[in-house]
Amino acid sequence: MSVLIVGSTALDSIKTPIAENPRLLGGSASHAAVAASFFSPVKLVGVVGDDFPKRYVALYKRHGIDIEGLQMLPGKTFHWSGEYELNMNNRRTLLTELGVFETFTPTLPKGHQNSPFVLLANIAPSLQNHVLNQMQRPKFIVADTMDLWLNIALPDLLKLLKRLDAFVLNDSEAHQLTKEDNVFAALKKIHQLGPKYVIIKKGSHGSILSGPRGFFICPAYPLHKVLDPTGAGDAFVGAMMGYLATAKGSVEDNIRRAMVYGSVTASFCCEGFGLTRTTRIKRAAIDQRVKELEKLTRF
Amino acid sequence: MSVLIVGSTALDSIKTPIAENPRLLGGSASHAAVAASFFSPVKLVGVVGDDFPKRYVALYKRHGIDIEGLQMLPGKTFHWSGEYELNMNNRRTLLTELGVFETFTPTLPKGHQNSPFVLLANIAPSLQNHVLNQMQRPKFIVADTMDLWLNIALPDLLKLLKRLDAFVLNDSEAHQLTKEDNVFAALKKIHQLGPKYVIIKKGSHGSILSGPRGFFICPAYPLHKVLDPTGAGDAFVGAMMGYLATAKGSVEDNIRRAMVYGSVTASFCCEGFGLTRTTRIKRAAIDQRVKELEKLTRF
Repeated sequence: MSVLIVGSTALDSIKTPIAENPRLLGGSASHAAVAASFFSPVKLVGVVGDDFPKRYVALYKRHGIDIEGLQMLPGKTFHWSGEYELNMNNRRTLLTELGVFETFTPTLPKGHQNSPFVLLANIAPSLQNHVLNQMQRPKFIVADTMDLWLNIALPDLLKLLKRLDAFVLNDSEAHQLTKEDNVFAALKKIHQLGPKYVIIKKGSHGSILSGPRGFFICPAYPLHKVLDPTGAGDAFVGAMMGYLATAKGSVEDNIRRAMVYGSVTASFCCEGFGLTRTTRIKRAAIDQRVKELEKLTRF
Repeated sequence: MSVLIVGSTALDSIKTPIAENPRLLGGSASHAAVAASFFSPVKLVGVVGDDFPKRYVALYKRHGIDIEGLQMLPGKTFHWSGEYELNMNNRRTLLTELGVFETFTPTLPKGHQNSPFVLLANIAPSLQNHVLNQMQRPKFIVADTMDLWLNIALPDLLKLLKRLDAFVLNDSEAHQLTKEDNVFAALKKIHQLGPKYVIIKKGSHGSILSGPRGFFICPAYPLHKVLDPTGAGDAFVGAMMGYLATAKGSVEDNIRRAMVYGSVTASFCCEGFGLTRTTRIKRAAIDQRVKELEKLTRF
C-alpha cells in the first residue's frame, strides 16, 4: 500500500563552523517522503515556487515519489537558513522566508483521497486538519508537529489529536504540551488527548512508543559523528510509515519494527547535510543497520 | 563468588519541596553493597563515626553484608545534605561534613585481599589505587568516579584507569574527561586510557557498554515517578557486580545481562528516598522487572 505524505517542501541553507551548504532540498515532507520511499510507494503533497531547482524534482522522481500533489506556484520556495554550533546540539535560525508556503492550502488530487496510510508531517495543524477533511477512511493516520504550533496554534492541534491514530513529537515538545518532565507521565497525558499510539522522540537517546501493547523502548543507531540532524525526525516517521504500509499483518504487530527502521533511516540522515547521505543509500544498507541494532540491544 | 566493595558510607539528608529526610543511610558503598547483596555475598570496606546509627549496622547485616572492613572511628560520620527541585533533575548540595571520612584510609582485612570481584565505588582515586595495592590478583576490577575527582585528582584517576577491567562514569563526566560530546567517540577515547570495558550511564536514558564484543545499548526501566535518584548509579554498578560474581560463564558472556540487572535495581533505588525502597524488595521483584524490560525492548 502507498503512503500519502503532506508537509513542507523547502530549500534549507545550513551553516556549520566548517561548511556552508546553500539551498539543499529540505522540509518535513521531503525528508519523510525520501525515507518512506525505501519501503513503499509515496504520494507527496506540498508546494514549491518557480525557483525550485529541477534537480530536486528529478530527485523525487528517482525515489519513485508521486508528485502529482506537489503544487508549483509563481513565487519563491520556502527558504530556511540555520546555523549549527560545533557540537551540533545548538541550532539557531538565521532566516525564514515563507514564499509560496505562506498561502499554501494542501489540495489532494482525487487519486490521493483514499490513501490508506497518511503522514501529516510538520506543518500548521489547521492544514493537517484540512487534509483529513478531504480524505475518505484512511487505515492509519500519523501526525508530527513542532514547538511553534504548540505556542501559536494549540486549539487546532488539540482538534487534530482527536482525529489521529498516532502522534509523534519530541521530548521537549511533550514537556511543553503536558508540563510533565517524566516522559512516561507525559505519554499518559497525551493519550488522554486522543491518539491510540504516542511516540516521543529523544534524538540520540532513541524513542519511546506507548500503545495498546504497552511501551516499547526503541534504540537509536550508534553514530560516532553527526554532520547535520536536520530532518532526522521526519526521516524517522517517514520510514516508519513506509515500513508499516508494506509489512504483512496489523499495525500493532509491526509498529515496533517499523520504529527501528525509522530510527536507522534517521541515522543515515544525520550523516550528511540535508538529504545528501540518505539519497545515496540502498534498502540493503538500512536492513544491515537494523540487524546490527538488533545485536546491540539483545541481552 | 563474593564482591568486595570499597567506597563512602555516609548519612544523607535529602530535602525536596514536599519532604525532608534527615540522616538516611547513604554513600556510594552503601548503595552498591545493598544492590549487590541481592545476587552475591558482599564485603564492605568504609568508615563511619561513633554517631553511626545502630539500625544501619543492622540493615547491612540483614542484607548479609560482611562489615569486618567497616572501620568505626571516634568522630562524626560523613554527612551530606542536598536539596532537589520539584522536577528532580536539579540538585544542589547544602552541606558536606567529611567527619571521619576526611582521614579515611581503606585497609583490607586479610580475608578480603584475594576477593575475585572488586568494586571501587566513588571515592578519591588515590584511595581506589591504595585498595588495589593491597589486593592479590582480582578476576575483575571495576571503578566508578565523580566530576570532583576529574577536577582535582585527574593524575590519580588516570593512573587508576590503567589498572581497571571496567570503568563506569556518567555522560557529563565522559564529556568532561574526553571533551567529546558524542558518547561513542568518548567511549573510544576512554578505552585508550586503559579499561577493556567502559560503561557510560545516561540516567533515565539507560547506559551504553563498549567492550570486546562491541557496544551494548542498555535500557532504563520505565519509571513514572522518581522520588530520589541519589545512589542510583551506585546501585547500578553494585547490582551489576553482584550478578557477575555469581553468574556461570565468562564476564564477556554475562556483562550485558548484568547491566540490565543493574538498571532494574537502580530503578527501585529511585522510587524511594535513600535506600528505603531498595531494602524492602526481594530478588523476585528484580527478576520480574528484568523480564518486563526484555519485553519492552524486543522488536
